[in-house]
Amino acid sequence: MSLCLCVSVVKRLSVPSFTIARMSNAFQISAHAGSARRGRLITPHGAVESPVFMPVGTAATVKGVPQDVLEELGVEILLGNTYHLYLRPGVEQVRVLGGLHRFMAWPRAILTDSGGFQVFSLSELRKVTEDGVTFRSHLDGSSHFFSPESALAAQIGLGADIIMAFDECTEYPADGERTRASMEMTRRWAERSKRYFEVHKDEVPWGAGVSRFEFQVSGGSGDGEVGDSQNSKLETRNCTQALFGIVQGGMDLALRKESAERTIEIGFDGYAIGGLSVGEPRARTREVVEATLEHLPRDKPRYLMGVGTPEEIVEYANMGVDMMDCVLPTRAARHGLLFTSEGKISIKQVRYAGDAGPLDPNCSCRVCRRYSRAYLRHLYASNEVLAQVLNTIHNLSFYLDTMRRVRHSIGLGESAHFLSGEQAEGN
Amino acid sequence: MSLCLCVSVVKRLSVPSFTIARMSNAFQISAHAGSARRGRLITPHGAVESPVFMPVGTAATVKGVPQDVLEELGVEILLGNTYHLYLRPGVEQVRVLGGLHRFMAWPRAILTDSGGFQVFSLSELRKVTEDGVTFRSHLDGSSHFFSPESALAAQIGLGADIIMAFDECTEYPADGERTRASMEMTRRWAERSKRYFEVHKDEVPWGAGVSRFEFQVSGGSGDGEVGDSQNSKLETRNCTQALFGIVQGGMDLALRKESAERTIEIGFDGYAIGGLSVGEPRARTREVVEATLEHLPRDKPRYLMGVGTPEEIVEYANMGVDMMDCVLPTRAARHGLLFTSEGKISIKQVRYAGDAGPLDPNCSCRVCRRYSRAYLRHLYASNEVLAQVLNTIHNLSFYLDTMRRVRHSIGLGESAHFLSGEQAEGN
Repeated sequence: MSLCLCVSVVKRLSVPSFTIARMSNAFQISAHAGSARRGRLITPHGAVESPVFMPVGTAATVKGVPQDVLEELGVEILLGNTYHLYLRPGVEQVRVLGGLHRFMAWPRAILTDSGGFQVFSLSELRKVTEDGVTFRSHLDGSSHFFSPESALAAQIGLGADIIMAFDECTEYPADGERTRASMEMTRRWAERSKRYFEVHKDEVPWGAGVSRFEFQVSGGSGDGEVGDSQNSKLETRNCTQALFGIVQGGMDLALRKESAERTIEIGFDGYAIGGLSVGEPRARTREVVEATLEHLPRDKPRYLMGVGTPEEIVEYANMGVDMMDCVLPTRAARHGLLFTSEGKISIKQVRYAGDAGPLDPNCSCRVCRRYSRAYLRHLYASNEVLAQVLNTIHNLSFYLDTMRRVRHSIGLGESAHFLSGEQAEGN
Repeated sequence: MSLCLCVSVVKRLSVPSFTIARMSNAFQISAHAGSARRGRLITPHGAVESPVFMPVGTAATVKGVPQDVLEELGVEILLGNTYHLYLRPGVEQVRVLGGLHRFMAWPRAILTDSGGFQVFSLSELRKVTEDGVTFRSHLDGSSHFFSPESALAAQIGLGADIIMAFDECTEYPADGERTRASMEMTRRWAERSKRYFEVHKDEVPWGAGVSRFEFQVSGGSGDGEVGDSQNSKLETRNCTQALFGIVQGGMDLALRKESAERTIEIGFDGYAIGGLSVGEPRARTREVVEATLEHLPRDKPRYLMGVGTPEEIVEYANMGVDMMDCVLPTRAARHGLLFTSEGKISIKQVRYAGDAGPLDPNCSCRVCRRYSRAYLRHLYASNEVLAQVLNTIHNLSFYLDTMRRVRHSIGLGESAHFLSGEQAEGN
């Protein structure tokens, strides 16, 4: 027999279980502990246990980590950035390929942001009017325009499970007048976002359904597992994306309350707290989060955007936040800053060059099981790509493990708290 | 129950099966097909089926690919570069951590080159004398000296399973006088390498044994599997690293013959053909390889250094080469050049932006099973690290699959040959 590699049979990609469950979106709370809630978001691409930390996959990839590793880590929902995907590869390109899930071969849930935050933080020469925002691409300087309508069109085309109303992220610091004006524009944009969504929501690449978004609250405490019977009731219904509104109002608690109430009046499937982690002191962040949460519906998911450290995500979960995202674990990993049960480690330090121990002796991730600190230090010092890959896997594992323990604690009716080794020893 | 991450139990790294088999090095040939041989190299860190392609892990990492993925791909032996590891992290650092296997958490076989090729191709201001080579680091300009003795000391300290005599890689083109002088110096350096090795071979980090290197030839054709009884005979013996000699002689067939004969006189565990792929036409490479192979012992492994394309590695295996290494699959991957059963693909091309099909419909690697060409093209165009990771995994898979088919063909007593789709269709 001779060796011949010219086989003409064409195989199809076999990404694991791309069947859309056809369940209605839902949020089910199964346990409480103080203000904290344990729950489950049901999305067209699977269930998401909450409180949940969502890794950031800016350009349809969590930088350096293959999708199967994300699955193995237990990631149930990823965040994609509309601004980046709109610029490259382009919404139409993703849409004709079946949407973001198929494009990036990720069968589980995805949330896209509205693009608002990136327009304000990354792009140049932006001009904001009542209509929307004109901005220049950070890639090539080309000019673009985002309105509530076009941002929603982009997010419907990308086809994430959860999408966000278009908002203006108020800068910090901002005076009272500016903060109110910005909050009010965000509210008007939220109305336009909702209106556009209602007309176009059936245009999602994977959607054939027309049913309204629905949710269920099972309430009470328990083991945190939602029974199959509840899921099966939902399975036959068609569904669309879920649309979340964003509460703004800067650091002014009265404006935050007003923003929350007026956003709730419009009616969304979930509510996000935006405009934080923009340079304010952490104590102020906490105060605003706590005050804003009071005014959000108890039966809808609450998403705190862009936070935080491992300690902070535990704290916010205790306050009653259900969803969080942050570039910190992935970005810090690329700079050699690693989160461990014994505190933060800067792996570039020469003290680790001869350290044969695991990165975190209490972590069971594939990095900590196999590699030594000495090896990770060598990879970082040598500017090897594997440093970024392994560091990111570990940091994500640490964040996801942290949230797993938080959910477990809430399931037991207890507040979760985070103590790093450094804090435990030193303070 | 409260959440506390401060657990004081320290876990050990649990790298899979780091027990050294304590088998003597051996090379067992199980089948022939023309000049081609199917065999098995027995090393202190496991068996290696041959003919084998060895992925290059320059700085103790195959750039971008975690070790568990290499295992999954079926990699049985990696190549490490002595020059790079000597400069960073340094031989002593690796040695005190237990050697290269433990350092990089790679339990299977490793081969290190002598450092000679890199000194000649990468470093600056090198000065060659009979003693050795003075060179400047490409990293920081610091001055260093490699002699046959110090290159061997470095390789014993790193502790690869197979190490190489220190040689001079003759430049191309070179005139007859220069080629002879260079070949003769390589021969003298080979003697010094062997002498140093005999005195110091027990200093290998994982070695406690003192037995001489041994090999066995089972000969004849068969299914290519070596029986357990043969392995078990070897298991109780202690062993050392295997030392290979390198044949030089430029493009001069008579000098190649002389180099082969005089290197064999010194006596090595295997023989490499060096000094090729240095700019000469491919037809000339083939001619030199074929002519040199004639003069190498049939019962020792033959290693052709630094080749080649998928077509070439099949061709060289047919000529009777047992081992090959090349940066081509890994380096090309980083430049978006991918090897497939349908020919080479430059994934950066815009024609793939909307291509929903797999990279190679006839490949079953984890990249081709999951991701589309459109996604791989997006990752590359966006300069995403995952592009390098996935591209490298696929190219290595393609090379390893190619060699697997070559071994299968030889096992059946047939010559292997490689036809890419492009060739089949176009020529």
